Formats: sequence, C-alpha cells, structure tokens
Amino acid sequence: MKKIEHLGIAVKSIEESSKIYAKLLNAECYKIEEVESEGVKTAFYQIGESKIELLEATKDDSPIAKFLKKKGQGIHHIAFDVEDIHAEIARLEGEGFQLIHTQPKAGADDKVIAFLHPKSTDGILVELCMDKEKFKA
Amino acid sequence: MKKIEHLGIAVKSIEESSKIYAKLLNAECYKIEEVESEGVKTAFYQIGESKIELLEATKDDSPIAKFLKKKGQGIHHIAFDVEDIHAEIARLEGEGFQLIHTQPKAGADDKVIAFLHPKSTDGILVELCMDKEKFKA
Repeated sequence: MKKIEHLGIAVKSIEESSKIYAKLLNAECYKIEEVESEGVKTAFYQIGESKIELLEATKDDSPIAKFLKKKGQGIHHIAFDVEDIHAEIARLEGEGFQLIHTQPKAGADDKVIAFLHPKSTDGILVELCMDKEKFKA
Repeated sequence: MKKIEHLGIAVKSIEESSKIYAKLLNAECYKIEEVESEGVKTAFYQIGESKIELLEATKDDSPIAKFLKKKGQGIHHIAFDVEDIHAEIARLEGEGFQLIHTQPKAGADDKVIAFLHPKSTDGILVELCMDKEKFKA
C-alpha cells in the first residue's frame, strides 16, 4: 500500500457535519460528489497526502444508511492508494484475503476501487484505490 | 492539521493481528511499544507519510479494553500531526471543540499528544500529535 488515500466517515448530514469538519481540519471541502450507484453523497478534504471523505446516505437501503442505523456516525472505511489495482487484488487473494470486488469498479474522486471483506481483515472495511487516469493508461 | 499521523486500530491480540496487518499492508511492523499509563501495547506500520497503530489492552479497565468490550475490534481513533500543539489546542477550543487534554501529555512513538472529546467531533475520537523533539525545542 502506497499511502492512506482517504478515510471514509459516515455522517447523517454533510450539510451539518461539513461545518464541524472544516473547523476541526482547518481546511475547506474541495469537492462534493454523488455516487448514484452506491446511494451516497461524498465531501472531500485534503490533509497532507491523504483525504477525509464524509459519506451521507442518499437512499434508505444504501450501505451508508445501514451503517448509520447499526453503528451511528463514525469511521466507516480506510482506503489505501495502490500502484496497480489488479496486481494488488491478486496479491491479497493469494494471501488469503476475501475481496468484495475481484474486478475494480468506478469510485468517487476519479478512482477505480475494490473493497475487501471485513471478515478477513479483523473487522475493518478496507478499500483499494487507483487513479482512473493510470488505470486507463 | 498537517497530515494523518496515524490511525489507531483496536485489536484483541497484536501477536495474532500483526500477521494479518503485515500481509494486508505489505509492510513490516517497525516498532512495538507499551504505554504503561494507558494500559496499552502498540505496534506501528509506516504507510506513506502516515502510520497504522495497532492497540492491544494490557489492563482490563484500560480505554482499549472498554472499547473492545463495547464495539469489538476496529478503528479506534484518528491522529493528526500538528506543527504546534499548544496553538492547535487553543485554536480548537476557540472553535468550540471540547478537549480531553488541554495540556499535552506523553504518547507512544516519541510524540506529545492531546485528545478531543468525541461528543464535539461527530462521534469520532481525534488525537493531536506533535514530535517530542519539536515540543522540547
């Protein structure tokens, strides 16, 4: 893993929470983006080489809506930047990890992504991220 | 906040979990350190400019033991690197955040630290970190 690409934090309302996070991080949100297929609205803050990604559910049955109902607001997942997502999926499968996505899919913020299943990672939800630009090249 | 200094992950056993995290992160643990006052043993992995810190309870009444009983294994806190911890505590108090430590205290991995109270940060536990070397200077 090259770096922490972002940390995903589930919030009830980006409108409300963005006021808190802008003050906490002393940074402005640089992008708000909706990912229709995931039923999620996202807001991004750059902190060093990493990002904080706020996640608000836009559908009642979306993964973030389910997380909020079960656990309340809090850290939802950790995403790592990888050089080659296909190679990293193969490496992790070889090490015995269970992938939710064995084929990369489109994510927010111009990335292709794949999630690992938390049951093979001590209960934490891990995402692999690769720049869409590099993926196409 | 300059960067994500580390992400603290509560685990039942560093001996067991370090096998999983070394494979997941494709990195070796560079330090294991016990913080007696906090009842915690820590293991560190460097990923880009940030670290993953595994946290194992060494006392039944320690904060990590309580977290594990209540929530199970998972992400416990996010720590940000700050240039001047006194200035950052003052800035955050001025913004209305509640500090658990208004005076910096010694932390693991050669840091001075202060925690914010989760009730003022949307439920996430946030730590400020500053290099002990810089703090002395």
